[in-house]
Amino acid sequence: MKILFFAGALRKESLNKKFVKEAKRLIDEKGGHTTEFLDLADYPMPVYDGDIEASSGVPETAKKLGAKIKEADALIISSPEYNGAIASSFKNVIDWLSRDKPVSLEYKPLLLLAASPGALGGVRGLWHTRVPLEVVKAHVFPDMQGLPSADKAFGADGKLTDEKTVKRLSTLTQQFIDHVAKA
Amino acid sequence: MKILFFAGALRKESLNKKFVKEAKRLIDEKGGHTTEFLDLADYPMPVYDGDIEASSGVPETAKKLGAKIKEADALIISSPEYNGAIASSFKNVIDWLSRDKPVSLEYKPLLLLAASPGALGGVRGLWHTRVPLEVVKAHVFPDMQGLPSADKAFGADGKLTDEKTVKRLSTLTQQFIDHVAKA
Amino acid sequence: MKILFFAGALRKESLNKKFVKEAKRLIDEKGGHTTEFLDLADYPMPVYDGDIEASSGVPETAKKLGAKIKEADALIISSPEYNGAIASSFKNVIDWLSRDKPVSLEYKPLLLLAASPGALGGVRGLWHTRVPLEVVKAHVFPDMQGLPSADKAFGADGKLTDEKTVKRLSTLTQQFIDHVAKA
Amino acid sequence: MKILFFAGALRKESLNKKFVKEAKRLIDEKGGHTTEFLDLADYPMPVYDGDIEASSGVPETAKKLGAKIKEADALIISSPEYNGAIASSFKNVIDWLSRDKPVSLEYKPLLLLAASPGALGGVRGLWHTRVPLEVVKAHVFPDMQGLPSADKAFGADGKLTDEKTVKRLSTLTQQFIDHVAKA
Repeated sequence: MKILFFAGALRKESLNKKFVKEAKRLIDEKGGHTTEFLDLADYPMPVYDGDIEASSGVPETAKKLGAKIKEADALIISSPEYNGAIASSFKNVIDWLSRDKPVSLEYKPLLLLAASPGALGGVRGLWHTRVPLEVVKAHVFPDMQGLPSADKAFGADGKLTDEKTVKRLSTLTQQFIDHVAKA
Repeated sequence: MKILFFAGALRKESLNKKFVKEAKRLIDEKGGHTTEFLDLADYPMPVYDGDIEASSGVPETAKKLGAKIKEADALIISSPEYNGAIASSFKNVIDWLSRDKPVSLEYKPLLLLAASPGALGGVRGLWHTRVPLEVVKAHVFPDMQGLPSADKAFGADGKLTDEKTVKRLSTLTQQFIDHVAKA
Repeated sequence: MKILFFAGALRKESLNKKFVKEAKRLIDEKGGHTTEFLDLADYPMPVYDGDIEASSGVPETAKKLGAKIKEADALIISSPEYNGAIASSFKNVIDWLSRDKPVSLEYKPLLLLAASPGALGGVRGLWHTRVPLEVVKAHVFPDMQGLPSADKAFGADGKLTDEKTVKRLSTLTQQFIDHVAKA
Repeated sequence: MKILFFAGALRKESLNKKFVKEAKRLIDEKGGHTTEFLDLADYPMPVYDGDIEASSGVPETAKKLGAKIKEADALIISSPEYNGAIASSFKNVIDWLSRDKPVSLEYKPLLLLAASPGALGGVRGLWHTRVPLEVVKAHVFPDMQGLPSADKAFGADGKLTDEKTVKRLSTLTQQFIDHVAKA
């Protein structure tokens, strides 16, 4: 299976990038799948504006990202919570992707994660992040994982230090993959 | 009372700009308030990125918009629904505004409208639009108005053609103003 | 495939019962599946109360309904919108079902419909109805269908009169079944 | 000012009853307001069913509760999260109250709290609890408070043991009261 990993945040040291890379590592260690991490910062898009779309079409970066998504059998995305809701950086990507027909996210199996320095782990934001994804008909896996106190969760080697967190992430990603494999 | 009007969308011919301008016109006709429409396209901001904030701070455009909001006694905003949820253009503005302390939106009375060519008038999106605004502690008025079939709702003079819609908008904006006036 | 149909509403002449029965009829006409409609009014439960659970356990009606759900390969549910959100009657059923372990709804494929006399067809409520279902890990199909003006949508024979609505319902239920069949 | 306090849960030892009683105590200690706690268990209502409404009207208990709400200047409600969403017990009360015209909750200032044994304090559920309240046009205060690990939060005397939690609750309820007093 071909699995694509990315974070909904842009900054270099994003906790969500670290978290989703850990998901990738755990899957890679078990083997058997082709995995790829990509960085949304390499796919810069302007804030969605109907006039830009009318004059220049969907940005090439959105089309390239859409092509990547189409090729993948499944997506694992860790996206931050901004102001209790979806991150503007990720919503903007979804809005542009939704203008690139046929929509790459349609019926695409997708697992959502979140990392946050706060105590709630960004879970509240995930429930808002699901909505536009489900509106474009992505198959968002019902279970999700938030990582609280994410600023203290990684060692110098970038690995999650808490065993229970690692186990939960390993189990959840496996459940997701097993579900996609059956489909 | 000083009332600020804007739309959550960027494009020039935005139906939401037209709708919120009609709200302004109806209030202006009754008189007694200082009203101002501003265009988010005049306050361009990059997609929120923690690295931009760390290196250059909050954009000047966000600070200027925040200052405008601080001066106002109340806001009336018409914001489109993108993919069943908040418009990325408006979420991005909220995310930047939330980084400019003290946050201009805190405890600010705010009325939400939406216009959409669809049959639902963008009302579904409004319920997601409320969330980050309430998280930054804006006082979002409980009642809201969606304008369905908005592409056919305006005459050549930019005025709403349906009398019932005009009456509802006039009543709703008045209720909102009366509520703010009491506070 | 064994498909279970019910409505989230209790009253006898519920528009949601009529709507979900039409979904059943369209599937029955194509053949190939075992279908069953059940009426939540035949599974009366008290309003959820932790003291009732502590003293008498999960009601027998909830256990019977849970057993029905466990047997089914897929669920098609039409649930009304009450006050812009999930119907209390359906939320109450979900809350009781969630106390009957292992939870019957876990990983159960599920299609949501809604019928409403209003112009929005109950779609707004559906987005709130998804949430607790996804929290108990049901696989809620991303696409959904709302039936607006539902009080005028059925003929004397109980059949939907609008051809486009019938076609949409037929297509959607087929897509759902095809998706479940693959899994 | 007349302030009414209740919990959205029914069971006797409800953590939400304890939490909202603490909010009442903190306000009582400062003095100057008439406060009353009521127990939803004393206002039993059947699960909402349009047939019950048609044959027997809105239950007397709902009418009595509505009268209590009408008399109050403000409500402080602590309501649990069930399955990541609004408690069925509270949603059912809202649905019945919404059928008793004029609706007692309309434009009623309202502060939401939640208590939960979990780590998130029921905050996720509060965001779903707001929705039907705002749909019936209650003025839900933007700020809210969730009490995590609520099963360990109270002393034998029923008082909150954590000073920071007490201080936050005291500040929040005061901000709410000040806001209502101005209106």
